[in-house]
Amino acid sequence: MIVLLTDFGLKDEYVAEMKAAIKYIEPSVEIIDLTHFVESGNIKHGQFFLKYSYKFFPKNTIFVAVVDPGVGGERAEVCVRFEERWFITPDNGILSFAQNGIVYRIKNVKNPITKSISNTFHGRDIFAPAAAYLYQGRGDFFERIENLSTLLELEEVKSLNQLDRGEILHIDNFGNIITNISDKLFEKIKIEVNGKTISHFANSFEEAKLKGYDLFISNGSKGLLEIASPQNNAAKILNAKISQKIKISEV
Amino acid sequence: MIVLLTDFGLKDEYVAEMKAAIKYIEPSVEIIDLTHFVESGNIKHGQFFLKYSYKFFPKNTIFVAVVDPGVGGERAEVCVRFEERWFITPDNGILSFAQNGIVYRIKNVKNPITKSISNTFHGRDIFAPAAAYLYQGRGDFFERIENLSTLLELEEVKSLNQLDRGEILHIDNFGNIITNISDKLFEKIKIEVNGKTISHFANSFEEAKLKGYDLFISNGSKGLLEIASPQNNAAKILNAKISQKIKISEV
Amino acid sequence: MIVLLTDFGLKDEYVAEMKAAIKYIEPSVEIIDLTHFVESGNIKHGQFFLKYSYKFFPKNTIFVAVVDPGVGGERAEVCVRFEERWFITPDNGILSFAQNGIVYRIKNVKNPITKSISNTFHGRDIFAPAAAYLYQGRGDFFERIENLSTLLELEEVKSLNQLDRGEILHIDNFGNIITNISDKLFEKIKIEVNGKTISHFANSFEEAKLKGYDLFISNGSKGLLEIASPQNNAAKILNAKISQKIKISEV
Repeated sequence: MIVLLTDFGLKDEYVAEMKAAIKYIEPSVEIIDLTHFVESGNIKHGQFFLKYSYKFFPKNTIFVAVVDPGVGGERAEVCVRFEERWFITPDNGILSFAQNGIVYRIKNVKNPITKSISNTFHGRDIFAPAAAYLYQGRGDFFERIENLSTLLELEEVKSLNQLDRGEILHIDNFGNIITNISDKLFEKIKIEVNGKTISHFANSFEEAKLKGYDLFISNGSKGLLEIASPQNNAAKILNAKISQKIKISEV
Repeated sequence: MIVLLTDFGLKDEYVAEMKAAIKYIEPSVEIIDLTHFVESGNIKHGQFFLKYSYKFFPKNTIFVAVVDPGVGGERAEVCVRFEERWFITPDNGILSFAQNGIVYRIKNVKNPITKSISNTFHGRDIFAPAAAYLYQGRGDFFERIENLSTLLELEEVKSLNQLDRGEILHIDNFGNIITNISDKLFEKIKIEVNGKTISHFANSFEEAKLKGYDLFISNGSKGLLEIASPQNNAAKILNAKISQKIKISEV
Repeated sequence: MIVLLTDFGLKDEYVAEMKAAIKYIEPSVEIIDLTHFVESGNIKHGQFFLKYSYKFFPKNTIFVAVVDPGVGGERAEVCVRFEERWFITPDNGILSFAQNGIVYRIKNVKNPITKSISNTFHGRDIFAPAAAYLYQGRGDFFERIENLSTLLELEEVKSLNQLDRGEILHIDNFGNIITNISDKLFEKIKIEVNGKTISHFANSFEEAKLKGYDLFISNGSKGLLEIASPQNNAAKILNAKISQKIKISEV
């Protein structure tokens, strides 16, 4: 299975051309879109999806993540084996969570249909075909190297002495705010977003509605605390933005 | 064929994780996205898509519809056999159109990859894997029960003595307004939306354009009357909203 | 491989119903979405995607392009063989770039599941099933004809004596402005959009950033010049719109 993550959106031909390159090389492989709505050029936002989603995909899944503001510059193309999955990306920090994996540099790949590489679209011309070759078990496009060259870590708040690093990792379609706070801190903290404090906890939307909470903190489905609203859009109420800092304090 | 309908949108990882759960169990099954843009939590809007689309999918198609504001609460998970298709959903009214089908309760399903069930994402952890098991013909996850517990019927205006129940079921990408009025009433009624009356009928956009209609009523492709505009966006002209009431009168 | 292009968006059931019709006829065929976000009814915008993307898809790909404001009127349904690919569309000008191909009229196709044809949705009831039959090699639905009946050419600026035909063909997700100017004119011209002149050239976003350009012209990945901004949205800065005219002058 090849899973695609990009900041390309779906209005353009870009994702389709990546899929065509993959299917041209290996018609039998399954392709799933993780999302193409990473914030434009936001490498940490792209990393959020990879880091917290990979375990919901089968072992040996090949993730292709193209959030690539440095395309055409000096950054390398890499492939990392981590937790029994594969990750193919620019070497720009998006794989920091997987830095302890086995790292390969991608070499000598070009678009299989046009036999060329453009300056601005390595997703189609390098990353997508590399994934198809990897799926076929071809080692000739991958060279073992020591380390990733660039790190850009997603910090997580795992204990009460890390409360100064609170951040919003993502806001979903329902306006749920996914924080970087571990669910081990459930009922141990309160959160302030843009001047408004959220201190209620609940285990489900149903429970929050019954208790009359307008905003509440829950466990979400990723091991992270989320701020939600039973019948409204929490992100709109709080004017929250992806990647903004939040204040955490002990209760 | 498994067909997915949700209110998740496409910005998040949710739909991809449902697909991964399905493909992990049954790699050979085809998955088609009906739409993921049901209005957030609007069960009737979700029902609209199922009720008026299922007949355009082959017999034995398995629909998985997750519009699930009650997730984490008491509502059950059900599977209904209706008109030679299968429907897997929360028991929250979304299947009212199929209430005369054969009803099963879903039991003992969990996410096949993580071996767990989250509180907030049964689409991935219960509904998607249940669809894959059903596709494989496994009966051990389904228990026959009497009835759906919750009904939330989409009323239809089928005759001139039902004119008081007019409603907008959907607004499409072109601004076409899909009403709940049967096309049997073509040329027999006029419709008022937000104070503006539409009384012209035409069989196609071409015909409406030739006749100089700014707004017109047509048969659409679902057996329902639609309000459209040959070169503009009818919903914007009328400031129409999904699920709002409309006034119908005899001509 | 069948590739779909429409102006349907993804909020409705339309694309899914096209896929169901295809898979019902030919379950084994791969379907890829080129894009469903062609501007509503903008035939030239639809042609842009076909003309500049087809070569990134394998030979014998079948493109189904439904931008069809004339549906229900007199326009025919056609299939064109061009540059070793197939194109199935309304005969409304969208295939002007392929006018020298071999042209067939599509006949006697109806929706394979419902056995009918609606007035307003030939994408599902004619074009999609025709593509599936073509994939199966069935000739009985295709009749050789002389020519396309309607042309609507996308002009390209290929030399310095064609500078009066400058136009914006597309604006992508990043705000990059794709012009109709051949990359042969790289560094030979400057472009004016809504009163603002762009005269810097760069080979990559990295280079433009290093040189401190706010807006620059690059080669893009299609053989056309593009206007971009290293860290902002060029289309927003310039208030640019798809299909608008632009002024080109020699440097």
